Amino acid sequence: MSAAVPPVAEGSPPGAVVEEMAREAAVWCALHGLVVGDRANPRSATVPGVGLVHAPFSLLPAHLPESFWRQACELAPIFNELVDRVSLDGNFLQDSLSKTRQVDDFTSRLLEIHRKMMAINKEENIRLGLHRSDYMLDSETSSLLQIELNTISTSFPGLGSLVSELHRTLINHYGNFLSLDPNRVPANAASSQFAEALARAWSEFNIDSAVVMMIVQPEERNMYDQYWLTKHLKESHGVTTIRKTLSQVEAEGQILPDGTLLVDGKKVAVVYYRAGYTPNDYPSEAV
Amino acid sequence: MSAAVPPVAEGSPPGAVVEEMAREAAVWCALHGLVVGDRANPRSATVPGVGLVHAPFSLLPAHLPESFWRQACELAPIFNELVDRVSLDGNFLQDSLSKTRQVDDFTSRLLEIHRKMMAINKEENIRLGLHRSDYMLDSETSSLLQIELNTISTSFPGLGSLVSELHRTLINHYGNFLSLDPNRVPANAASSQFAEALARAWSEFNIDSAVVMMIVQPEERNMYDQYWLTKHLKESHGVTTIRKTLSQVEAEGQILPDGTLLVDGKKVAVVYYRAGYTPNDYPSEAV
Repeated sequence: MSAAVPPVAEGSPPGAVVEEMAREAAVWCALHGLVVGDRANPRSATVPGVGLVHAPFSLLPAHLPESFWRQACELAPIFNELVDRVSLDGNFLQDSLSKTRQVDDFTSRLLEIHRKMMAINKEENIRLGLHRSDYMLDSETSSLLQIELNTISTSFPGLGSLVSELHRTLINHYGNFLSLDPNRVPANAASSQFAEALARAWSEFNIDSAVVMMIVQPEERNMYDQYWLTKHLKESHGVTTIRKTLSQVEAEGQILPDGTLLVDGKKVAVVYYRAGYTPNDYPSEAV
Repeated sequence: MSAAVPPVAEGSPPGAVVEEMAREAAVWCALHGLVVGDRANPRSATVPGVGLVHAPFSLLPAHLPESFWRQACELAPIFNELVDRVSLDGNFLQDSLSKTRQVDDFTSRLLEIHRKMMAINKEENIRLGLHRSDYMLDSETSSLLQIELNTISTSFPGLGSLVSELHRTLINHYGNFLSLDPNRVPANAASSQFAEALARAWSEFNIDSAVVMMIVQPEERNMYDQYWLTKHLKESHGVTTIRKTLSQVEAEGQILPDGTLLVDGKKVAVVYYRAGYTPNDYPSEAV
């Protein structure tokens, strides 16, 4: 087990109970799909169902005053709106990244594609952003500080929702040692909500046989986080997801005269990026 | 993946679809706790949450005419009654196993304990049997033949229930290739029903703080099958399970004057054997 076991401090449960909690938590992960591919197993990043290990987790949630939690929730739609507007303002993007462009070849080439699309007036009137904003509580200023705002390949909507459930379960079972209230663990519906957002975007395409295409890396130890969304998409919304690397899209994809992307003979309604944010994901030049 | 992929025969789905089904099935196992410890990982039999791999499974259920299914269901309570009556008939047991006793030291010593208990008129007026009767369809006689009847450490109530769910899910998703009806996969509630039976036995003891003690082997790659029952016992019945090897019971257990077994300071309401059926489980003499 590699679960992070907090040090036993005054007021904490006795060491034996902490050990028991860690054991129960690891079991819970195995039973509930809170798993990743084990880096010790070379097949775990490519073959599903093998080389699984519980995802890293904290045994208990971090303490966060409710006011900060509410603040973060209130900020979320505002940041989402900001990212959306920035994404639509091509000139602003080109200008603000002009210095990065000079020193970073990857960004430079992405901006070059972007510039070409601007030149032909390429526009998508429907778009979907799935973001994750990370905060930490700053003890000096006692304020919530944003660490980063993920706008592509935002990970852990699937596993994160499970961690909240795990914490509630542990607090339920060990409540008498912990003096914590399981109902104070905020609900985390990211898993079903990400799927719902993807399904909404899919339905805009308005073709029942169309699919969501998840762009993935050829090796992905965090595939189960992604598969949770695939499952919700299928079971709650009847939407099929296909998984492709950018290389596979280049090899197998086809653009119809009306602009529709066809992969594996299926019309692609939504392209969902869980890759594409590093140069490694672009092993060849487009033809 | 080590999933048993059936050969592609006429009327079967195309090979690519079978591959896709096997992949989806392996993912399903990882997300839903249909897992075992991987023998390639030495820690997987002792440390929960590590070295997990999907349990072996067939991609589709075996075909069984409904009449045979009903026959097996009707036979179950009759066989259960038979086993219960045999277990109560000490003389019959001693007589019928007398020849085995002569050639098998393990059985001989179990019978010796049994004989001593008979001599002091030791009786338990409450007992619980959790059995599994295995059948195969005999093609020559076209009849259902019993392979074995498990009366101790019956395994796979936990994972078996999941396999039925997996089959229904696959048939749902690939129905157009399979010409199979997911509703014809019989419900398998063994997991929750085993837990319910254990909870019923526990409630007869009538002490809220008492526990179910699962007797386990020190190394158990099939621990998640067992943990599913632990989970149902806790979440559906509020009953705590402790896991002990026979060695641990000898070292840590204590029998109170009134006959109550105390382990870890907890009164044991039910002893549930998932070990004890091989000489290896008895590493030392009782003191």
